[in-house]
Amino acid sequence: MNISILAVGTELLMGKTVNTNATHLSKEINKLGHSVLYHLTIGDNPDRLKSSLKYLLSISDMVITTGGLGPTKDDLTKEIIAETLNQEMILNEIALQNMKDRFKSFNVVMTENNKKQAYIPKNSILMNNQRGTAPGFILELNDKYVAALPGPPREMKHMFEVDLKKFLVSKSESSIISEYINLFGIGESSAASIIDDLIENQTNPTIAIYANIGQVSIRVTALADSEIEAKKLLKPTVFKLTELLEKYIIGIGEKSLLELTIDKIISKKMTLSLAESCTGGLIASNFISLSGASEYFNSSFITYSNKSKEEILNVSPLTLEKFGAVSEETCIEMVKGLYNKTNSDICLSVTGIAGPTGGTKEKQVGLVYIGLIIYGKISFQKYQFTGDRFAVRQRTYLNAINDIRKKILLD
Amino acid sequence: MNISILAVGTELLMGKTVNTNATHLSKEINKLGHSVLYHLTIGDNPDRLKSSLKYLLSISDMVITTGGLGPTKDDLTKEIIAETLNQEMILNEIALQNMKDRFKSFNVVMTENNKKQAYIPKNSILMNNQRGTAPGFILELNDKYVAALPGPPREMKHMFEVDLKKFLVSKSESSIISEYINLFGIGESSAASIIDDLIENQTNPTIAIYANIGQVSIRVTALADSEIEAKKLLKPTVFKLTELLEKYIIGIGEKSLLELTIDKIISKKMTLSLAESCTGGLIASNFISLSGASEYFNSSFITYSNKSKEEILNVSPLTLEKFGAVSEETCIEMVKGLYNKTNSDICLSVTGIAGPTGGTKEKQVGLVYIGLIIYGKISFQKYQFTGDRFAVRQRTYLNAINDIRKKILLD
Repeated sequence: MNISILAVGTELLMGKTVNTNATHLSKEINKLGHSVLYHLTIGDNPDRLKSSLKYLLSISDMVITTGGLGPTKDDLTKEIIAETLNQEMILNEIALQNMKDRFKSFNVVMTENNKKQAYIPKNSILMNNQRGTAPGFILELNDKYVAALPGPPREMKHMFEVDLKKFLVSKSESSIISEYINLFGIGESSAASIIDDLIENQTNPTIAIYANIGQVSIRVTALADSEIEAKKLLKPTVFKLTELLEKYIIGIGEKSLLELTIDKIISKKMTLSLAESCTGGLIASNFISLSGASEYFNSSFITYSNKSKEEILNVSPLTLEKFGAVSEETCIEMVKGLYNKTNSDICLSVTGIAGPTGGTKEKQVGLVYIGLIIYGKISFQKYQFTGDRFAVRQRTYLNAINDIRKKILLD
Repeated sequence: MNISILAVGTELLMGKTVNTNATHLSKEINKLGHSVLYHLTIGDNPDRLKSSLKYLLSISDMVITTGGLGPTKDDLTKEIIAETLNQEMILNEIALQNMKDRFKSFNVVMTENNKKQAYIPKNSILMNNQRGTAPGFILELNDKYVAALPGPPREMKHMFEVDLKKFLVSKSESSIISEYINLFGIGESSAASIIDDLIENQTNPTIAIYANIGQVSIRVTALADSEIEAKKLLKPTVFKLTELLEKYIIGIGEKSLLELTIDKIISKKMTLSLAESCTGGLIASNFISLSGASEYFNSSFITYSNKSKEEILNVSPLTLEKFGAVSEETCIEMVKGLYNKTNSDICLSVTGIAGPTGGTKEKQVGLVYIGLIIYGKISFQKYQFTGDRFAVRQRTYLNAINDIRKKILLD
């Protein structure tokens, strides 16, 4: 099916909320062999909601709405869907009971305005909300479908997973399979010029390049009657691309640079310690954001100030004075101090100028040193990154884990 | 003007990239007194790009596109805009020179496919790209406008700031002003039921409630001929809302809970140290993500394993064995150890079960203890959060900074 996603909420148009729902749904829908045609976002405005719904239904097989199911008076999605598809709203007893149980489990009195949430359009299939109060539903009319999901991502994702996914699987006839070739250390246009001929002649599979901060990915997508056929179709193109881009490839598939690095650390049964200055816990937090950290993550330190570099990592005050906190010398003393303290198999130190202040003519914003001790062997890298505080910290984090990954691979 | 934002890029519809551009632009556009009508996202498909552009131009005063300006062959935005508005594409010498200079400054040879980027539609105003190679432009036709911005957020934001903003200011007649009332510790529907009457009778200013993980905000928006008039219109409603919601308010305005907390710490000239277990650097990284951390941020530790809790924070092995790593006792010993080590004015310890594994019947996933020592005075909080690993860590982070904020306020 061709599916469009309609997000409802003035907060999206005011720029207060990012529409991550559309991203999540799109990813899932594509996996199931359906296509996403459009994302459309509108405010809490009944007329525009109605005209947008009609427009999207005229060009898509299915419209999935997110948001506007809540208890407040500007939540109008359900009512407008019912009106547009000529269905009356009826109280759904299962939804009401579910909501009552939910409030009870939290020891909270259910306010009267919540009852509105238990009404859904007649003839629709209820999708219970196990992570919130507003239920969703699926409605069919003349071979077109409308599904309504709640706006909060936690609720939306869970409802999709439990109910809507099953429905979409039952409607899928063809398979779209994508493979991702993940690159590091090359820009988008350089990558494009290397694989120019392949892009020029693409039909099925298709090839697309896209860039994130510090990372470039190439997506190869094949469409076929079955998953097996689509995979067969993918293979030769993926093979050619890996040949052409070999030296930049960090991995094939959906695993990120971080996941690939963690896999390597765990498979080698290594331990890891970090001493972070300008990244201030960003590297550690990313490692610990994925479960499994207890297998390898050892004591780590955030040594932002000179004082803490001295006290915790035993960096010499003379070194800090003579060469500065952002220098090869300090970076190396930091990682040595970290190693002496933790004895971890992998020790990594970071010191840099993330900006916007702190730069000089000699040491500009974006200057970063990364020190590494792996199994007792020391090395360091000097980087000059571009961009704002966020970008410098993000690039530092990515290069730090890539430095680890490369060194372990060689090991 | 009524402005629609058209994002171009198959990666958005595949769910590989989040459309943060639409969010950023919407925020800025609203500040300048224009309205955002629609966000529409389409793939790299010439026909759908053309029909979408036509549709949005028919219902909006201006369309701003993002993406599809790059050097690769699926970047078609400029060409389609030119075709739709009947303009030929011409080589812009300034854009070409800018691009050449840019490649030179990076010591990179400019590949031939980049030259394509220097073509823009005839009769358009060039917007130079100071953070990338693809230039943008603004084109007027019959009192309607189209502006094309690059897709990478860093480039897009900078081009908007330098060029497009000026243009939008020159076209603005009315002012829309919003005020944000930020709440903590109350859910969306409870907040709504408290201010029900105000929402019911809203016209200008309008009131909207929205929720993020752990945070609820109320937006009050007034429209008037001038900024002063709009502000005057806002005042009584904001006043009524603050009266009704007093005990949940953490701040008025666009400052986040984190910024408010940091402001307080700096104004009181306090120092801060953290000992993080399940958050693993998330709290520290958020503090350090904002510049100014050197004024208050002291040595901090990531003590994920029992071993590091013992070695670094001097937590007793007996305590860990008897009560477990996630317990009131461990949490208190952690913060005491942190205080002994750093002597910081504010010491905060976190230990919890972020999941998905590690939960038991007695201690469920989401159980978190936060310990605090402020000016030597000790306290702790026990939380039972809901949600996945991401949500538990995010809620822990928010409650940790809110705990600090509340304690300093009382101080």
